[in-house]
Amino acid sequence: MNTTEKQTADWLQSVRWNSAENRLELLDQRLLPDEIVYLELTTSEQVWDAIKQLAVRGAPAIGISAAYGVYLGVRGVSGSREELLDAAVKQCEYLATSRPTAVNLFWALDRMKLRAQELASAGTEPEALKQALLDEAKLIQSEDEETCRLIGEHALSLFEDGMGVLTHCNAGGLATARYGTALAPMYLAQERGIGLKVFADETRPVLQGARLTAFELQQAGVDVTLICDNMAGAVMSKGWVQAVIVGTDRVSANGDVANKIGTYSVAVLAKAHGIPFYVACPMSTIDLNTPTGADIPIEERHEDEITQGFGKRTAPKGIKVYNPAFDVTPNEYVTAIITEKGIVRAPFQENLKKLFEE
Amino acid sequence: MNTTEKQTADWLQSVRWNSAENRLELLDQRLLPDEIVYLELTTSEQVWDAIKQLAVRGAPAIGISAAYGVYLGVRGVSGSREELLDAAVKQCEYLATSRPTAVNLFWALDRMKLRAQELASAGTEPEALKQALLDEAKLIQSEDEETCRLIGEHALSLFEDGMGVLTHCNAGGLATARYGTALAPMYLAQERGIGLKVFADETRPVLQGARLTAFELQQAGVDVTLICDNMAGAVMSKGWVQAVIVGTDRVSANGDVANKIGTYSVAVLAKAHGIPFYVACPMSTIDLNTPTGADIPIEERHEDEITQGFGKRTAPKGIKVYNPAFDVTPNEYVTAIITEKGIVRAPFQENLKKLFEE
Repeated sequence: MNTTEKQTADWLQSVRWNSAENRLELLDQRLLPDEIVYLELTTSEQVWDAIKQLAVRGAPAIGISAAYGVYLGVRGVSGSREELLDAAVKQCEYLATSRPTAVNLFWALDRMKLRAQELASAGTEPEALKQALLDEAKLIQSEDEETCRLIGEHALSLFEDGMGVLTHCNAGGLATARYGTALAPMYLAQERGIGLKVFADETRPVLQGARLTAFELQQAGVDVTLICDNMAGAVMSKGWVQAVIVGTDRVSANGDVANKIGTYSVAVLAKAHGIPFYVACPMSTIDLNTPTGADIPIEERHEDEITQGFGKRTAPKGIKVYNPAFDVTPNEYVTAIITEKGIVRAPFQENLKKLFEE
Repeated sequence: MNTTEKQTADWLQSVRWNSAENRLELLDQRLLPDEIVYLELTTSEQVWDAIKQLAVRGAPAIGISAAYGVYLGVRGVSGSREELLDAAVKQCEYLATSRPTAVNLFWALDRMKLRAQELASAGTEPEALKQALLDEAKLIQSEDEETCRLIGEHALSLFEDGMGVLTHCNAGGLATARYGTALAPMYLAQERGIGLKVFADETRPVLQGARLTAFELQQAGVDVTLICDNMAGAVMSKGWVQAVIVGTDRVSANGDVANKIGTYSVAVLAKAHGIPFYVACPMSTIDLNTPTGADIPIEERHEDEITQGFGKRTAPKGIKVYNPAFDVTPNEYVTAIITEKGIVRAPFQENLKKLFEE
């Protein structure tokens, strides 16, 4: 696997398809903000690793990457239409094992599998089928960009000039095809001269807030202040925050929200201060097949992220650690869920279902 | 200033007076848990720096160190009794400028000043007066050890075998002469075979929880689990925490509590989960001259603690940062304040006053 260093662009694209070289290029988000390096991936195993190791992260960006991974996994397959379909299904199953919580991963892979099945049923020839799978991955990506723009429009209708907005983790352009979910209204506000004062939680242990959110908003010229996660309450108590907005890795049918660890604490703090708590996500993040938050599998990650996450050991050797990557915020803490199709409020069980039926 | 490396002891003493060498030795807490190094201090300027730079931290330990600093600042003074008294008063004023929030610093310096004035009034000769100031510093230290033991006894009466207890920052033996305040009941429980399951917040930005609390409890054989600050809510929601206990840098007359940044968030989370929130401190931390928490000066520290706290930059250059070292928890979140004289509950305004009158 090669890497391309120090590329520049008007905006940093987290996932890009290089047609000339027929490869997937992922911005290695572990190296940000210090280094801008694109991983050049040519196999589905490399895509699996990149997702597992957090080179690419953010629920929508993971889904897009996995979709391209399916194509990379089947393009070298020779044989009959049935053998190709079988390989595509196996690739989808394999890539689904990379991370457990973000439902966009499974959504994108299901969509790829369904597309492969449709095409095979229609008698598509193997080479055309491969090409159609690549096209489908590209479509998932381009749709995500439009989806995020729409989420931004809806979210922005809830904000006003001069408001303080707190966010946790990174649900920005780096987590999606472009714009982001929770950060989309901030980009649109910036374009339109609406001034928001953003507080970015640094988001231990992997510091996506410090490394990614603070970075991408600073690049865009947004007024952003970096704080440690434990300062969110103090900042709220000072009256500096009028809204919280975060992304999510999975919303269950009843409106419970799985998101980066720490989101639940922020939601409880927001409620205690009378501050609305908004969740921004594409429809593909809402999983009506998951009844409640208790049914969402929560990934636990390696203790090193906590004990030596800054390249230096910061805790005693042998110390016991609890390191869940996500937590679940019960629906009673959620003021509204903002999707590309509009803003959903309680009762979520009923209103989320309606959203899909519309 | 010299340092003594790699000393070992049954317990790590944060502050010790070396009578043979006539110098103050401070365990450099910035290097823990990697290195055990004692700073060897012979001037009050060195003590000022050690407090300012967090080599010694923890409200009681700061007070003890400053008291020795007064002696170091006057022992070389030659001249009359009045000149010596004048020098002692100036040293107290100087050392009081090292940090603004912990009231124990001012309490210890006031005590040293009062002692100097008493002795001078009584006609004590200069050399005897110097020696008496050193004895007073030693007395402050030995009293603190007994105070902490008593705090531990009172606090332990609130705990039961098998309970989960969460703490934030470090209010342990390293923050005091010995035992600590918030950690004192954990040491006593351990000695008596009462099993507590302790959760230690890592406590960004300086990670006193990861580096100090996790370290000293692990050394003592206490069952301790390290978490990131933003995991406290998730751990509480799982029902793993039956009590929160923290130290404090200053309690105002109405029972508001200044403590390490993040304490307020923990208190709000505890209340939302119906978990008692206890504050452990010596009487010297309660300041009846500070009416409310709003009157406590809150130190803001350098942005580098957040952007490159561990030798590696983890945020973009030029990013705006808010870095308060402390926050104030209003008294309505405080279940009880535990002192060497007993446990105080609401109404705090009335009951704290009574405690001093008893």
